[in-house]
Amino acid sequence: MTDVAAQPTADELAPPTPVIDRDAARRAYDDDRAHVFHSWSAQGALTPMVVAAAQGCWLWDGEGNRYLDFSSQLVNTNIGHQHPAVVAAIQEQAGRLCTIAPQHANDVRSEAARLVTERAPQGLDHVFFTNGGAEAIENAVRMARLHTGRRKVLSRYRSYHGHTQAAIHLTGDPRRWPNDSGAEGVVHFVGPFLYRSQFHATTEAEESERALAHLAHVVEMEGPATIAAIVLETIPGTAGIMTPPPGYLAGVRELCDRHGILLILDEVMAGFGRTGEWFALDGIDGGVTPDLIAFAKGVNSGYVPLGGVILSNAVYETFRERPYPGGLTYSGHPLACAAAVATIRAMEQDGIVDHARRIGQDVLGPGLRELAARHAVIGEVRGRGVFWALELVADRETREPLVPYNASGAAAKPMNDLVAACKRRGLLPFVNMNRLHVVPPCIVTEAEARLGLRLLDEALAEVFGG
Amino acid sequence: MTDVAAQPTADELAPPTPVIDRDAARRAYDDDRAHVFHSWSAQGALTPMVVAAAQGCWLWDGEGNRYLDFSSQLVNTNIGHQHPAVVAAIQEQAGRLCTIAPQHANDVRSEAARLVTERAPQGLDHVFFTNGGAEAIENAVRMARLHTGRRKVLSRYRSYHGHTQAAIHLTGDPRRWPNDSGAEGVVHFVGPFLYRSQFHATTEAEESERALAHLAHVVEMEGPATIAAIVLETIPGTAGIMTPPPGYLAGVRELCDRHGILLILDEVMAGFGRTGEWFALDGIDGGVTPDLIAFAKGVNSGYVPLGGVILSNAVYETFRERPYPGGLTYSGHPLACAAAVATIRAMEQDGIVDHARRIGQDVLGPGLRELAARHAVIGEVRGRGVFWALELVADRETREPLVPYNASGAAAKPMNDLVAACKRRGLLPFVNMNRLHVVPPCIVTEAEARLGLRLLDEALAEVFGG
Repeated sequence: MTDVAAQPTADELAPPTPVIDRDAARRAYDDDRAHVFHSWSAQGALTPMVVAAAQGCWLWDGEGNRYLDFSSQLVNTNIGHQHPAVVAAIQEQAGRLCTIAPQHANDVRSEAARLVTERAPQGLDHVFFTNGGAEAIENAVRMARLHTGRRKVLSRYRSYHGHTQAAIHLTGDPRRWPNDSGAEGVVHFVGPFLYRSQFHATTEAEESERALAHLAHVVEMEGPATIAAIVLETIPGTAGIMTPPPGYLAGVRELCDRHGILLILDEVMAGFGRTGEWFALDGIDGGVTPDLIAFAKGVNSGYVPLGGVILSNAVYETFRERPYPGGLTYSGHPLACAAAVATIRAMEQDGIVDHARRIGQDVLGPGLRELAARHAVIGEVRGRGVFWALELVADRETREPLVPYNASGAAAKPMNDLVAACKRRGLLPFVNMNRLHVVPPCIVTEAEARLGLRLLDEALAEVFGG
Repeated sequence: MTDVAAQPTADELAPPTPVIDRDAARRAYDDDRAHVFHSWSAQGALTPMVVAAAQGCWLWDGEGNRYLDFSSQLVNTNIGHQHPAVVAAIQEQAGRLCTIAPQHANDVRSEAARLVTERAPQGLDHVFFTNGGAEAIENAVRMARLHTGRRKVLSRYRSYHGHTQAAIHLTGDPRRWPNDSGAEGVVHFVGPFLYRSQFHATTEAEESERALAHLAHVVEMEGPATIAAIVLETIPGTAGIMTPPPGYLAGVRELCDRHGILLILDEVMAGFGRTGEWFALDGIDGGVTPDLIAFAKGVNSGYVPLGGVILSNAVYETFRERPYPGGLTYSGHPLACAAAVATIRAMEQDGIVDHARRIGQDVLGPGLRELAARHAVIGEVRGRGVFWALELVADRETREPLVPYNASGAAAKPMNDLVAACKRRGLLPFVNMNRLHVVPPCIVTEAEARLGLRLLDEALAEVFGG
């Protein structure tokens, strides 16, 4: 970043701007406001950007403005937009067989299951496919409860595991019986997060040890024999990209083993290349083997909705003779599975996972730390691969967050200003509360990554001075 | 059916058999057994059929055997398999833009929302898209609870509303707060079902009146001011295709209005042509207007996973200034929405909805009643459009179900035998408990429908005599 003149510009790096039909885009906007209800939002305040086209790490709005996508949408387009091999696979499968019911078998579903399990830790040989991450967690928890015969499930504060809660309880047939209760028995504990340690720790080793002791205490107080599973995002994603300190995940695994508790790792956001590994769990404590893995997003970059649970062979055995009381119409959808097969093969052939690791090590990590050295608003830089968070603070000493927890409206203004400053420069960031996440596709080139850092540098300077 | 010799055979009706790669199908089977975990099943007992190809109302297994699809898979391929216009739309959209995040806007998402709301009752102008039916119900219930400020939700016995229950409770961020509790507050009541009346009714009018009085009593006993919503499948699907008797749904609407309770109609299986109407609610009591409609399946025949909620304008207003606390990565997925746009247009242009109604009136209804006249095992025939159930009984006098409620294994043998007899004849039926459902695609021709009835007649005769 020191020699700005030598750096390639967006015009040099981006693909040619496609033809944008501005009238169609305006109609899309109008129909959106008239008929589309959006996630997690007050509907009246929305002025959504029309995305008219996308390619690789780039996208274009309805007026032909170009953006470098440092959000990967919702951290899902790991392989970038419109990867030709994945597009071709979807088109070919669409022409062959779009959908079949889950009770039948199908070549691409079988192949996707094999390719996914081949990348999972040893001893996890089966996949239950869902439409996305929330349903993956739903089913992982159901499996854990039935496998252990226990009810409670522990998860951490500062986490996100999906948006579903109720449908099976409304059902009036026997499929409800093994599933009654859902909210009951969920207990939240404090996970490790050194920058905002609740354990008064000052080193990673201390944070790891104390967070483990806290979890062991919660398990003891809740009653180990009542706990079916501990659910953790391997690296919490939207909640802040907090890589667990060395020893923590291995310690949770030991704690689980001691008490017959299952370990469910949520790899929905962290999996499939995001951290520079096939699964984030591969890069932590020398590899951690959970009992169940929830995945989605990166498995096919969200080109077709897909998620799933990878089961340990022990959990699978529980349902060999006993019917599994869960399912969905689109489980193992051929179009979604064809996209997964093509995505995994392309990632393998193009070395995309290793590439993501190197971009993190060589470009994003050093570049973001350089930004932190120049911008006092950055309290901490953390992450790996193409999975980075900037913790923005009002005061570096007190570490007071730039905006309060769960801020919205006027209270969130500094973050909204930063997003606007990024977008004016053609950079699409991902923000949550007081954090900006740098989460480009895994295929981001070194030059694109450096350009994004430069635009972010300018945006930070504009909004916060310096 | 009287002049069998004059009826066209499967060879005459079916499309040419495609080239089947039997080795690939065997590998698909082996990988399925090694790596795929199936819905709602004991895994050890499964010998899934490999579906190698499908076209219209027909599909082929891995050995080249042909089946007339009277299941529509899971009652979702309303437009049949591989409709060329829908396949082309998916292929075109895949080449253009596979995925964008839900917070942006997009032309096909906007158009799909407009086309869906144009077919809904007046005053329901917005759509929240999900990946499938379970998530549609999840979000409809969340909306109802937040709109009313009440907790309880009533649903009927003999119903199915999806498989999800828990993910949001595990989440450790503020998105959990407005969603805590899910199982609590679900109360089941008895719905109308004249053939097995719990109200000792002998006519439809009596069943309707008494079932309404029962529901009013439950509402009174639970406390009207505590009830957010009543959730009903407009016509319960997997639970038995029980069209509500005249006056019932209109009566539930009145009861809801009297107490400020929202009416959520689940049209996941019944919607988009299945009953010979765009929505089943159009054909009942002169049209019933709910506050929220859940849909999935037929909206794009499941070619790409898609579901959603259609909101009344009053519910929409609740979330104009107040953030809606629900969402998902693939909400309004472009590929899924492109398939919906093409499906709805093709259904419109080809008159598929009217066709389904006529097939029910002219062929399936009369034909199934003729079967009932010949086979004592058929206790009742009920349905409309391409949405029919045969209630199979051990004794027509006592109406004892052919197999017990929720039977499995040896107890379900008569039903399993019937499925096997159908499949040997090249007919793929849908069965649940003691019922066989006749649910072909809406595009089924008169000749195909008659062929299916003939095969079913033979299968019934083989298994039950006569």
